[in-house]
Amino acid sequence: MRFFLTIEYDGTDFIGWQKQNSGPSIQEKIEECIYKITQVKCSIYGSGRTDAGVHSKGQVAHVDISKIFSSKGLMDAINAYLLDYKIKITEVKPTIPDAHARFSAISREYEYVILNRSAPPALDDGRVWHQRIDLDIKNMKKAANHLVGTHDFTSYRATQCQSNSPIKTLDELSINKVFDKVFVRAKARSFLHHQVRNIVGTLKLVGSGKWNPEDVLSALDKKDRTAAGPTAPACGLTLIKIEYPKEIYL
Amino acid sequence: MRFFLTIEYDGTDFIGWQKQNSGPSIQEKIEECIYKITQVKCSIYGSGRTDAGVHSKGQVAHVDISKIFSSKGLMDAINAYLLDYKIKITEVKPTIPDAHARFSAISREYEYVILNRSAPPALDDGRVWHQRIDLDIKNMKKAANHLVGTHDFTSYRATQCQSNSPIKTLDELSINKVFDKVFVRAKARSFLHHQVRNIVGTLKLVGSGKWNPEDVLSALDKKDRTAAGPTAPACGLTLIKIEYPKEIYL
Repeated sequence: MRFFLTIEYDGTDFIGWQKQNSGPSIQEKIEECIYKITQVKCSIYGSGRTDAGVHSKGQVAHVDISKIFSSKGLMDAINAYLLDYKIKITEVKPTIPDAHARFSAISREYEYVILNRSAPPALDDGRVWHQRIDLDIKNMKKAANHLVGTHDFTSYRATQCQSNSPIKTLDELSINKVFDKVFVRAKARSFLHHQVRNIVGTLKLVGSGKWNPEDVLSALDKKDRTAAGPTAPACGLTLIKIEYPKEIYL
Repeated sequence: MRFFLTIEYDGTDFIGWQKQNSGPSIQEKIEECIYKITQVKCSIYGSGRTDAGVHSKGQVAHVDISKIFSSKGLMDAINAYLLDYKIKITEVKPTIPDAHARFSAISREYEYVILNRSAPPALDDGRVWHQRIDLDIKNMKKAANHLVGTHDFTSYRATQCQSNSPIKTLDELSINKVFDKVFVRAKARSFLHHQVRNIVGTLKLVGSGKWNPEDVLSALDKKDRTAAGPTAPACGLTLIKIEYPKEIYL
């Protein structure tokens, strides 16, 4: 039986989603818990990797389980073993056998939070990018609008990005300021490696007045990573939601 | 020169606002930082105490400083020494000499957050009260409305509460559910010890169907702490805002 797991995590203490020898990963912790429950080695497949320090409210992974479990029973069992970790399964849904957390996804949504005030964060430490300079939201919105749509995002992807094509369609890139926080929301079918963080790092140049809104387009045209702004830190980023076609759920 | 400091903190690692011998307090940490800056022992006076584990986005304290400081200079200096603590000064304002953080306050606002879902919190660990049972928000709202206004809140105050009178006016008690979080907002000129947490603990009895909305009134009438529900845990509570008359600011 194939299940889709929705996973919330605080990425601070992990080397990222993907299992690696360099430290604890979210994937590894969940696989260990499932092994404790089923006594069968299993692999879980995420909708995509998240970098070290990136958080999630809506990461999705699929897993095949041969024992009979109700969705709720499976969720509670995994969460019981996850007790000591800031990783929790928030939803479990049975799917058709060929549903795939990565390849069946029709959209991905991220949120990046900038804390824009003089004082560093106390309550949001490790969850936001702290910026003292009063950011120009109007200009950031203008710049963001330039990036929406289908473009060659070479200038905004990590040089080590393994995607076949740098052409992606950004369906949404919105900026909203609520009190002292600036929320950047990005939605697309899929993203390039570091794409959201590189966009945010560049939008910050616009917000702080170093760049004009149009400069994000010139950077795009150059198709060169060094033409765009720096990569914003991981801690401000949260994977919010992965969407799938309704037909995959049983 | 008297300054009002607005203070954000994560209460998890502290024994509460007030200086005590039993462990680190927020008040003590800030006083230590100011001493490092001015080399003069000082006391700061908060708008009120918060219990161990209670958080703040808007606690206010006043302090008298004889050295000449700009508001921003003082804020940055204290925050520099607070680097290692989840306590930050978010605003500093000079006031008239007899302004008092506690006695000049005209309203206090708290927020209590209940995470209402099966899975325990990953991202909001230590910031919410986790409730698995699907709470009846409609009935909680009805119950809350019964408590708004001027009442003898004996049943909802800690037995060790030192307030002269148990009669308080609750100006606002609102309940809003956003996704899987229930936000309880309470506003009053002042509160009794544990009043918000005791009210939330009682509203939870209503939400989970153990009590009818009207039962919160019967409990009120009994003027007996044992007649109301248990005290909700500290971690879900955040002091949001203290209001003062505009005239106190220079």
